[in-house]
Amino acid sequence: MIDDEENLSSFLNTVAAIKGKKILVHGGGKIATKIGEQLGIVPNYINGRRITDAATIDLVTMVYGGLLNKKIVAQLQAKGVNAIGLTGADANIIPAIKRPVKEIDYGFVGDVISLESGVLSRGSGMTSLELFVENGLVPVFAPLTHDGKGQVLNTNADTIASVLAVALSKKYQVRLIYCFEKKGVLENVADDQSVITLITKDIYKYLLDQHKLFDGILPKIDNAFAAIDSGVQEVVIGDAKDLLKNTGERIAGTLIK
Amino acid sequence: MIDDEENLSSFLNTVAAIKGKKILVHGGGKIATKIGEQLGIVPNYINGRRITDAATIDLVTMVYGGLLNKKIVAQLQAKGVNAIGLTGADANIIPAIKRPVKEIDYGFVGDVISLESGVLSRGSGMTSLELFVENGLVPVFAPLTHDGKGQVLNTNADTIASVLAVALSKKYQVRLIYCFEKKGVLENVADDQSVITLITKDIYKYLLDQHKLFDGILPKIDNAFAAIDSGVQEVVIGDAKDLLKNTGERIAGTLIK
Repeated sequence: MIDDEENLSSFLNTVAAIKGKKILVHGGGKIATKIGEQLGIVPNYINGRRITDAATIDLVTMVYGGLLNKKIVAQLQAKGVNAIGLTGADANIIPAIKRPVKEIDYGFVGDVISLESGVLSRGSGMTSLELFVENGLVPVFAPLTHDGKGQVLNTNADTIASVLAVALSKKYQVRLIYCFEKKGVLENVADDQSVITLITKDIYKYLLDQHKLFDGILPKIDNAFAAIDSGVQEVVIGDAKDLLKNTGERIAGTLIK
Repeated sequence: MIDDEENLSSFLNTVAAIKGKKILVHGGGKIATKIGEQLGIVPNYINGRRITDAATIDLVTMVYGGLLNKKIVAQLQAKGVNAIGLTGADANIIPAIKRPVKEIDYGFVGDVISLESGVLSRGSGMTSLELFVENGLVPVFAPLTHDGKGQVLNTNADTIASVLAVALSKKYQVRLIYCFEKKGVLENVADDQSVITLITKDIYKYLLDQHKLFDGILPKIDNAFAAIDSGVQEVVIGDAKDLLKNTGERIAGTLIK
């Protein structure tokens, strides 16, 4: 979505049309890779995993936290949404630790430790995130966190979305919606119409036993259940183009609960 | 300050030590030029003025709004300051218009029209900026604004500082402090100790008549008086190294009022 001006604009129209309190978490798209190439930053892989070295964390801080985040914010503002661009470092909303080195040193990758739980000085008893959404602001998160020691860290956007949803589920009824390029979880990956409309833990077990599911979708479903287990009320996996429908009662994607 | 890790860290220690409500506005330093060169962005000048073309606005959005802003925020967080990085697009805090084309088309440069005056949905009667400072957050602004039609714009950091100070002076006692590389306004530009401690309008007129002032300092003094005329209580021009002293009673720089 984010790599194509027209798709992005149309997607943000949908975001603007969603009623109620909302938060948008975006990823990085291909633009970071392109700008990295122009800057001569050579992607660094170990065992097939991209390493966030010093040059790369600066690159994604620029591209995710600056270029993409502010472009999205400015466009949402133009569409009447009072967006505010954030990273996990801002207002200390998402503290993380640099991923501990085991077999691989992933570099400047952040594992979220816990969401900001401190209350604000004014005694409102709210976290910064609650303060923003209660006051009509729409937070737009870039997939970055920080270690509390001055270092920005790279954190997967799906994880950011999940931890924000978990934190907010203590106070709000939350629907966490993952947007991707398919209509939902497909029973037959070659058939875009074979969307499985509901996956519960029992159904998931059955589908796994029957080897019905495409491997690539498993981490998304596992993430969804992790969010559910941590208190998120509903998770939907669906096509970005169906976002508005997926915020309503009759969804087009896959509901996980 | 911003180009040197050690100077930046020491400056941010000073920011952390300032008591009371505070806002930091940063510029861009030399890093944008350096990254621009690496990206093959050729600076575009007309009549000696740098033009913000399409490639340049993307560059400064990345570098000012992403790399520098988030680096400062993460470091302030490490120093116990609950910093939140912002541009003028975020929460629509600084709406601007693309500078009208007269003799020169400056490109994507924003002239500030007025600060967000809308009150928030919750009926707190506060602007977003007031909401943040009242709740113990320390806004850190990159020198970027937006046109309300989806375009991020490049705006001089001194101007951003001035319009924020003016807006806040309606509600707070504001001291606007410009940090630069001299101790203050100097009577003799070759003598760092010749700081003029106080400039009122009468004194300014006298100094201009006597040709006592270095040309380069005049825009800063004019900006300072513009802020005073718009309601800012005090303006100080001084060395970044004297920032803490310049927040107190006995300042090291030049007080303009």
